[in-house]
Amino acid sequence: MDSLSACIIGIDLGGTYIKGAALDSKGKVLSEGKIETEVALGQTRVLENITGLIADLKRRSGAGSLGGVGLGVPGALDFKEGRIIQSPNFPGWDDFPIRSVIEKAVGVPVIIENDASAAAMGERWVGAARNLDNFLLITLGTGVGGGLVLDGTLWSGETGKAGEFGHMKITPDGPRCGCGSTGCLEVYASSTALVRMAQEEWNRAHGDPLPPADWMTSSGLAEAAERHDPIAEAVFRKMAFFLGIGIANVANLLDIHHFIISGGVSNAFHLFEQPLRQEAARRAFGMTPEEAFKRIDIRRALLGESAGMIGAGHLVHLSSWGKLKG
Amino acid sequence: MDSLSACIIGIDLGGTYIKGAALDSKGKVLSEGKIETEVALGQTRVLENITGLIADLKRRSGAGSLGGVGLGVPGALDFKEGRIIQSPNFPGWDDFPIRSVIEKAVGVPVIIENDASAAAMGERWVGAARNLDNFLLITLGTGVGGGLVLDGTLWSGETGKAGEFGHMKITPDGPRCGCGSTGCLEVYASSTALVRMAQEEWNRAHGDPLPPADWMTSSGLAEAAERHDPIAEAVFRKMAFFLGIGIANVANLLDIHHFIISGGVSNAFHLFEQPLRQEAARRAFGMTPEEAFKRIDIRRALLGESAGMIGAGHLVHLSSWGKLKG
Repeated sequence: MDSLSACIIGIDLGGTYIKGAALDSKGKVLSEGKIETEVALGQTRVLENITGLIADLKRRSGAGSLGGVGLGVPGALDFKEGRIIQSPNFPGWDDFPIRSVIEKAVGVPVIIENDASAAAMGERWVGAARNLDNFLLITLGTGVGGGLVLDGTLWSGETGKAGEFGHMKITPDGPRCGCGSTGCLEVYASSTALVRMAQEEWNRAHGDPLPPADWMTSSGLAEAAERHDPIAEAVFRKMAFFLGIGIANVANLLDIHHFIISGGVSNAFHLFEQPLRQEAARRAFGMTPEEAFKRIDIRRALLGESAGMIGAGHLVHLSSWGKLKG
Repeated sequence: MDSLSACIIGIDLGGTYIKGAALDSKGKVLSEGKIETEVALGQTRVLENITGLIADLKRRSGAGSLGGVGLGVPGALDFKEGRIIQSPNFPGWDDFPIRSVIEKAVGVPVIIENDASAAAMGERWVGAARNLDNFLLITLGTGVGGGLVLDGTLWSGETGKAGEFGHMKITPDGPRCGCGSTGCLEVYASSTALVRMAQEEWNRAHGDPLPPADWMTSSGLAEAAERHDPIAEAVFRKMAFFLGIGIANVANLLDIHHFIISGGVSNAFHLFEQPLRQEAARRAFGMTPEEAFKRIDIRRALLGESAGMIGAGHLVHLSSWGKLKG
């Protein structure tokens, strides 16, 4: 890299870790890093961690200057004012003007975006969603989230919270969700949900409340399904059933046909891809299941945990000053 | 009206009727008309009916010239080519280049749009959605449909079919829908669904398969609910329950907060408004039910059956040639 070129930095601010990368104008990672967020140590400490990571990434990138910083933040955001409206992972940060505070500390423009939306843009830049103008990125992790791209740009909604695909209710009287409601997709398609459903199925089959110890994680469950354990396989099929309905609901509402599956559970994508695609096709409106099966494209994400930071960096690029400076 | 001014014409092409209006640049109706579509008499007859209505509306408007025609069409559309991809109400019209055919016949530019989307733009121009940049228009009629406006413009999707809110599945194993799937919102919130649910409730309460004769229409049922018939009231509450969940699902996915209820069933809006708003608030993500109750705005449409033709006209206005000529 030309040492006189500018880099941009993308940061993924999570409740547990802050991940970041310095990127060149093509999305190539020049340096990357991951540190603990340390939310419990207070706001000043978290801000020092963010700005410290930015300085470190810049130094290690070899770039001559820093063009700007993109910051993916979980929760509801006020884009106009650059504030966190409310974020479950950052209690006490309500109304905090994070954009201007970081801008002042690092001396370059900062752009903020919802973390799942940033991840969607990362996949669109250099990942599984390249050349896609309309898609929903679905994150299957401890919870279920989403980032929505319409007509080539992020749809973040009125307060940056769009994409809450995990809280689409599919069964009004279904299991209780962490959000307080019932029957959300999250109770069928998160890693937590997979483990719960496995316990339920095991209990039903064996009358024994405790399944094998390695079924306490979705990856352990995936290994069991790979060994063709019938209960573990049934759990992934059940997840695919509900997730497929959710995907069809979005396809029907928005008339979009591309879905990218990311998050930890996407490591098991091969275990649920077929039933997922079949259920989505069966529930699509205005097409035969055969047409819908061809039309509705459900792929696995490519960037893993890096999508958020890379996408946050991409948003800097897409901004007018990012273009001027990058 | 200045007799030298141009008018625009909006047409709502339905399976049973063709409705149309000539409008001035402010959305004022200069002339309007409604004729039978006569689908069964063949494509040529339908096209003659459309162009005949356009000529009649133009003549009666008193305007000096015609600036353009907007045409709301039910079904899937190819906007680029101006074709009907597929429309359930117009069998045999697949791939028909309706835009160029009408353009040739009337000699002015024609714009096509999905009918429910056109209705949404009508309500935004001179109806219940004035000044709203983000909303879903929900049509509750024989079926349940929708038109989605995001950031001040229509979101029609990749094939003009966006807004199929009625085929969001809320109960995967629920009643069978006309679309072939099960548990769609349409089986709970259409006029047909109200009548079916009333029969079911009546049967459960009285062991008699036949409810009162006037319960065979949603308006008869609404009258019964107004007289506080407990079964009829329960039916509207049940509808509100499912519709409220559907609205919350859209609010959660898109982070939009305005919903306009139109269609025949909206005449009974006062009978289900409160339980509807309560259920939507209870199911909204990331807000307390109290906040959500204030935030999520559900209103009745104002333009009735005229929304589609007025909105189709508005789309002519918004197009660049509409602005130049209007």
